[in-house]
Parts: sequence; structure tokens; C-alpha cells
Amino acid sequence: MRSITVDLGERSYPIHIGSGLLQNIGARCVEAGYPVRSPLLLVSDSSVAPLYLADLESRLREHGYTVVSHIIPSGEASKSLTSYEEIMTTAIKAGLDRSSAVIALGGGVVGDLAGFVAATYMRGIGFMQIPTTILAHDSSVGGKVAVNHPLAKNMIGAFYQPSMVLYDLDTLSTLPQRQVSSGLAEVVKHGLLVDRDFAYWCREHASELLELNPEALGYALERGCSIKADVIAVDEREQGLRAILNLGHTIGHAIEAVSGYGVVLHGEAISIGMAGAALLAHKLGRDKSIYEETVSMLSSLSLPVTLPSHYDEDELMAAMMHDKKFKEGKMTFVIPNSIGSVSIINDVSETAVREVLTQLKKEGSPW
Amino acid sequence: MRSITVDLGERSYPIHIGSGLLQNIGARCVEAGYPVRSPLLLVSDSSVAPLYLADLESRLREHGYTVVSHIIPSGEASKSLTSYEEIMTTAIKAGLDRSSAVIALGGGVVGDLAGFVAATYMRGIGFMQIPTTILAHDSSVGGKVAVNHPLAKNMIGAFYQPSMVLYDLDTLSTLPQRQVSSGLAEVVKHGLLVDRDFAYWCREHASELLELNPEALGYALERGCSIKADVIAVDEREQGLRAILNLGHTIGHAIEAVSGYGVVLHGEAISIGMAGAALLAHKLGRDKSIYEETVSMLSSLSLPVTLPSHYDEDELMAAMMHDKKFKEGKMTFVIPNSIGSVSIINDVSETAVREVLTQLKKEGSPW
Ligand SMILES: NC(=O)c1ccc[n+]([C@@H]2O[C@H](COP(=O)([O-])OP(=O)(O)OC[C@H]3O[C@@H](n4cnc5c(N)ncnc54)[C@H](O)[C@@H]3O)[C@@H](O)[C@H]2O)c1
Ligand SMILES: NC(=O)c1ccc[n+]([C@@H]2O[C@H](COP(=O)([O-])OP(=O)(O)OC[C@H]3O[C@@H](n4cnc5c(N)ncnc54)[C@H](O)[C@@H]3O)[C@@H](O)[C@H]2O)c1
Ligand SMILES: [Zn+2]
Ligand SMILES: [Zn+2]
Repeated sequence: MRSITVDLGERSYPIHIGSGLLQNIGARCVEAGYPVRSPLLLVSDSSVAPLYLADLESRLREHGYTVVSHIIPSGEASKSLTSYEEIMTTAIKAGLDRSSAVIALGGGVVGDLAGFVAATYMRGIGFMQIPTTILAHDSSVGGKVAVNHPLAKNMIGAFYQPSMVLYDLDTLSTLPQRQVSSGLAEVVKHGLLVDRDFAYWCREHASELLELNPEALGYALERGCSIKADVIAVDEREQGLRAILNLGHTIGHAIEAVSGYGVVLHGEAISIGMAGAALLAHKLGRDKSIYEETVSMLSSLSLPVTLPSHYDEDELMAAMMHDKKFKEGKMTFVIPNSIGSVSIINDVSETAVREVLTQLKKEGSPW
Repeated sequence: MRSITVDLGERSYPIHIGSGLLQNIGARCVEAGYPVRSPLLLVSDSSVAPLYLADLESRLREHGYTVVSHIIPSGEASKSLTSYEEIMTTAIKAGLDRSSAVIALGGGVVGDLAGFVAATYMRGIGFMQIPTTILAHDSSVGGKVAVNHPLAKNMIGAFYQPSMVLYDLDTLSTLPQRQVSSGLAEVVKHGLLVDRDFAYWCREHASELLELNPEALGYALERGCSIKADVIAVDEREQGLRAILNLGHTIGHAIEAVSGYGVVLHGEAISIGMAGAALLAHKLGRDKSIYEETVSMLSSLSLPVTLPSHYDEDELMAAMMHDKKFKEGKMTFVIPNSIGSVSIINDVSETAVREVLTQLKKEGSPW
């Protein structure tokens, strides 16, 4: 088992990564400080629950816990205030008290939604994350919890740290292949941001990662989580440094918004976005090899690096302008300086971004 | 003008109390750190908005701010997830950004609701309170923000501190008399908790307080806020000491729950509850004079101190058992040791509480 501590003073918490971790879930809950007399609420989705929920419930009950489960439909549409209110109703009916905890069993959707419930039920109760996607290594560090508003994604939420993250690699075996690649996009992003060696390591071990080799995957998730944890420790509430985590996300979010959420997976969108950020870097004077290396790393993980031709530059630009990361119409971009180092640029011109989008369509062939 | 600082480290904020404060609202917003380029959202209710909102809007606009207002129906029913979502929609449509702020103009309902919006819009933006009730002196200190769930009051919320509280005494002139007394119940409670002299001062100046004499009222609100602020500074997240603030609330909440919210005002309910706590104290060995003094202080402020005969002890007991302040069926009570000093007792027996309820019906005549 690998363990990391996310270092946030009195809000610090451990991330445990390994195989078979869920077998000791009862002991973990005790370790996290949840008293057996207070009910636990398990939140999962309709794809994950049939695979892992019953086992989790019975182990917790064997340990003396009272458990109630709430299952949401799989997919981004469940990250809504409607689901949020329904879970609150379940929690109240089950008699959750101030010493209770919410356990999120699932990907980022379940984690973000259940985390917002935990953050606001009786003004905050315990929260444990059991991520079942690779992408959720990202959402399990940083304490961002949220639901979507019909008008904008992640608009309603809080900063709320879990008491523990349990990453049981065994649960990843059922993850669809496209979701595996999508999650690896955020892993390699963490390398591109601050760790050159790790970025190259990901390319070298791409096939092991895609095949979910436990040794390779455990290391990759540990590094991914650690790098994000280091950034968060410096800037918990997104005042400065944390913004580097948005590498690839400016264009990526626009692609997601324009396609309608769910058509392009998050990791796929930011993969194209990272290729775009590298192109922009070249336009602003950085070496073209950065772009070539970035593209080769992402491609090795079966990720898209070009923009399909049916995307409209105007629509993408409009989506970027509405993104909450902009102030007063100026465009902010995270761009690579080299592999493993980035800068935040505040005054990127619309023209430059538009040119990048056009170029992203031409480079290589559409995926 | 009187000013207090609520001392919470980097979350500290000032409370300004005085007449005519709203005339400088623009400068206050600048002082609070709200940039003029980011839209402000004013939240008020249907009773308060017609009286004070237009003036506030135009002063802010004169100062260069973009302002959007959202008006909720007056009353506790508006403290709901439905109103919350509607305000979120207004905020998004108005383009509020991370540097924006929500300004709550109204009583505790507006403050709690708007505060929860501020706490969770984009994971937290600026929040200013402009309390227009006396009761809201209590809700403006302590950072508790919340909405009600159909199954339980204040169940969904957060701890979120405002950047500033502006208490303009002029707005209190339109407050209905019953609301004035109700608000004074929490003021005198703060005296009963820790400040014997202030409790007696309230009785001596009862008629000035009921007539809203600015000098007396300013002092009373300053003391009330300061006492609460001192408690909060020691225990921001209700781990221990903060529980003393629940004096009168165990029985008070039960009365509110059983009557249906809005029939009995909050201050009226806790006034009866404080009389009950003093009776309980007597039962547990404290001097009977504590009860007599408590009743005399509350009565001087035109507050009820007996339980109307139609209340059913069983229903009240059941409501108390469901209250979120209980763990494992044991009853916790705050009781006076003397005027200006209290204890928290964790193992109060049901029988003792039941006897107090019966006695509360007999003492004096129903109000
Ligand atoms: N909080 C943060 O910091 C943060 C960071 C990144 C992403 N996110 C959020 O995370 C969400 C995306 O996360 P995601 O990609 O994990 O999405 P997801 O939770 O929707 O999971 C993807 C799909 O895989 C299924 N699935 C999950 N685990 C499975 C398993 N073990 N076996 C079989 N199927 C499984 C799910 O049912 C779903 O259909 C987005 O809402 C995004 O906003 C949050
Ligand atoms: N957050 C906390 O720590 C805290 C503490 C105490 C109470 N509260 C909450 O506060 C709420 C009660 O607060 P409240 O008593 O201020 O209720 P309120 O906000 O409903 O105001 C009472 C009534 O007076 C009207 N009103 C308000 N100001 C007025 C004015 N200046 N002129 C004329 N009419 C006016 C309102 O429209 C309403 O009808 C409850 O929801 C309670 O849970 C919160
Ligand atoms: Zn991402
Ligand atoms: Zn109260």
C-alpha cells in the first residue's frame, strides 16, 4: 500500500492507494474517527453500485456501523441540486448526526456531489472518498466539491477536505477503456506541470498504465496525487499557484461546453487543450519540441490531440469568454515553458487563441 | 458609531452599529474590498425591500457599482433550497464573479439564506450583512448560514463569515413591536449567559429599548454582538463553549416546531425556554431567585414566560428528542448557575424536563 498525506494543517488527510483496501473499510472508518453509533451514508452511482456497494455495506455492518445507501444515475447530469436535495432527504431520514460521515463510492461525479452534501449537511460532517475512476485521483485532492447549475458547471460548491481517501486499485478493473485513457490525461498533466521525469515515465509505461498494471498504476496515482497535493498545500483556496492546474482546461472546458457534456470525456477534452496550450506556447516563443513531446505523450495514452473539423472556432471562443476563469474579457492561459514547467499568462490575445484552434484542426488527422 | 471586531484570525470582520450608516454604503463596500468592476447582488425580502432597497441600490450605483437585486417573499418559508436555487440563477445571469459580493438586507431569514448563497457561489464570494431586525444581531455574529429542509430547520448550511456587518439603527424604526420584543430576547440572553450587569441594565432600560431609543439600542446591540463574538472567537465551529448560546433554545425550538414556524416568534419561544431553563436549574438545586429574576427581566421586555395551556407535553418532548442537538437520546441543557453564569448539563432526565414543562404552564397566567 502507498500512502500520501495531503498537508493542510488541521485539515490534513491521508490518501491510501493499493489493492484490496476495501476489505478493511470498517477499520478505516474507525481510523478516520467515525463513531459506530452514528449512521454512515454511502453515495454511489448506477454503474458502480451493482459492482461494489453490497460488499462495502456488509463489511461496514459487520463492523457495527449503521449504513444507508443512496444511488444516483450514472453521469454528469446527476451532479445537480435536485440530486443534492434528494441525498439530503435520505440523510435526514436516516438520522445522520454531527458525528456521521458521507462515503463517496464512485468517480468524480459521485465525489463532487457527495462531498458537497458532506460539506453542508448540518454545516459539515465527515467525508470519505473511495474513487473508482482514474480521473478521480484529481478530484480526491484539493477539496473542491460542487454541483452544476443548469447555466454553468461546478458553479455551486465549497472547499471541503475529506477525512480520508481510499483508492482501491481493484475497483478500476471494470472501468471502460475510454475512461482509463481520460483519467490518465490528468495524470500526465501533473507530470507536465512540474515533473519532467514523471511525464516521460508515463510515456514509457503507457501500455502498462492502459492495461491497469497495479504496480505502474499505483505509482502513477501516487505521483499524480502527490503533485496536486503539493500545489494545494501552497494555495488551498485558489488564490494563485493553484491556477497552474488549469493547464489544458481553458480550451478543454470550451470543447466540453460546445459538444454538450458527456460527448467528449473530460480527459479527452483537456488532452486536446494541452496540445493547444503547447501550440500557444510555441506561438509565444517557446520551442516547437514542447508541442511535439506533449502530443507524443498524450498519444501514447490513446488520447486525442487534434480538434475534429466540425468544431466551430467562434463557438469555442464564445464558450471561453463565458468561462468563470476570465475577468474583464482578458484571457488567462497556462502554457508550458518546457516539459515539466509552466507559466501563467494573463494577457493572451483573442487572435492568438483563435489561430491555435484553427491549427489544432489541421495538425494530424481528426481522432 | 460603535464598532466591534469579531476576532477570527484571517476571517475577522467588523460590525458597525449606528444611525445613518447606509448613506455611506458605497465607501463601506470599497472598505470591505469589493472592486467596482464586479457586480454586487442585493438580497432582501418583500417587507424590507419596499422600505430601503431602492435607496441602497442608487447609492451603490452612484459609487460606480453594478447592482442586481433579488427579492424573496417575507417569512421563514423563503429559507428554502428553492429560493437558494433561484438566487443562484439571478447571480449567474448577472455575471457575478469571484470578486463579487452578496449583500443581505433584512432579518435573519435574508441573512441566513443570502449567506449560504455567498458561501457556495463559485465556492465562496464576498458577503455583507445589513441586519434590519434586532434578532439579526444574533445571526450577524458567528458565521452560521443555512436553509431549511422540509424535514428539519437549518439542516443545510455552512460556517461562513461575512466581510462586514452594517447595523443601521434607522432601519429598525419600521419593525413591528412584536419583532422588537422577540429580538430583545436574544439580547438579554447574552446578558444572562455571561454578563450580570448587562442583564440588569436591560431590565432597567426596558422601556427605552422597546421604544428604540438609539442610544440605548446601540449600546444593547453592541453588548449583545460583543458577547456572542467573544464566545465565537473561542469556539468558531461549535465544538464546545459555543453550546452555551443555546440557553432557552432546547425548549424554545420544541415550541416553534410544535406550533408550526411563524406562529410563535423565535424570541418569544426562547423566552419561554429561558424561563424553563431557570426552572430546571431550580429543580437541580440552584436558587429559586434565578428563576424569578429571569422572568422579571423577560417580562419587562414584553416577552412571554409561560407555556399556553394548549401545548401538549408529549409533543414537546418528542420534538426535543428529534432536535439535532441530542445524541443517543440523552438530553443536554444549558442552565443558569446565577444571573450572568451558566452550565452545560449533559444527562438531564426526561422526567425533570417533563415536570418543567408542566410547571411552565402553571406559573403565572398564559400570555
Ligand atoms: N473536484 C475536483 O477537483 C475535480 C477534478 C476533476 C474533475 N472533477 C469532476 O469529476 C467529474 C468527472 O469524473 P469522472 O471522470 O470520474 O466521471 P464519473 O464519475 O461520471 O465516472 C465516469 C463513468 O464511469 C463509470 N464508472 C466509475 N467508476 C467505475 C468503475 N470502477 N467501473 C465501471 N464504471 C465506472 C461512472 O458510472 C461513469 O459512467 C466531473 O464532474 C468533473 O467536474 C472534479
Ligand atoms: N445564523 C444564526 O446564527 C441565527 C441566529 C438566530 C436566528 N437565525 C435565524 O434568523 C431567522 C429569524 O430572524 P428574524 O427574526 O430577523 O426573521 P425575519 O428575517 O423573518 O424578519 C422578521 C419579520 O420582520 C420583517 N422585517 C425585517 N426587518 C424589518 C424592518 N426593518 N421593518 C419592517 N419589517 C421588517 C421581515 O420581513 C419578517 O417578516 C430564523 O430563520 C433563524 O433561524 C439565525
Ligand atoms: Zn480536470
Ligand atoms: Zn436563537
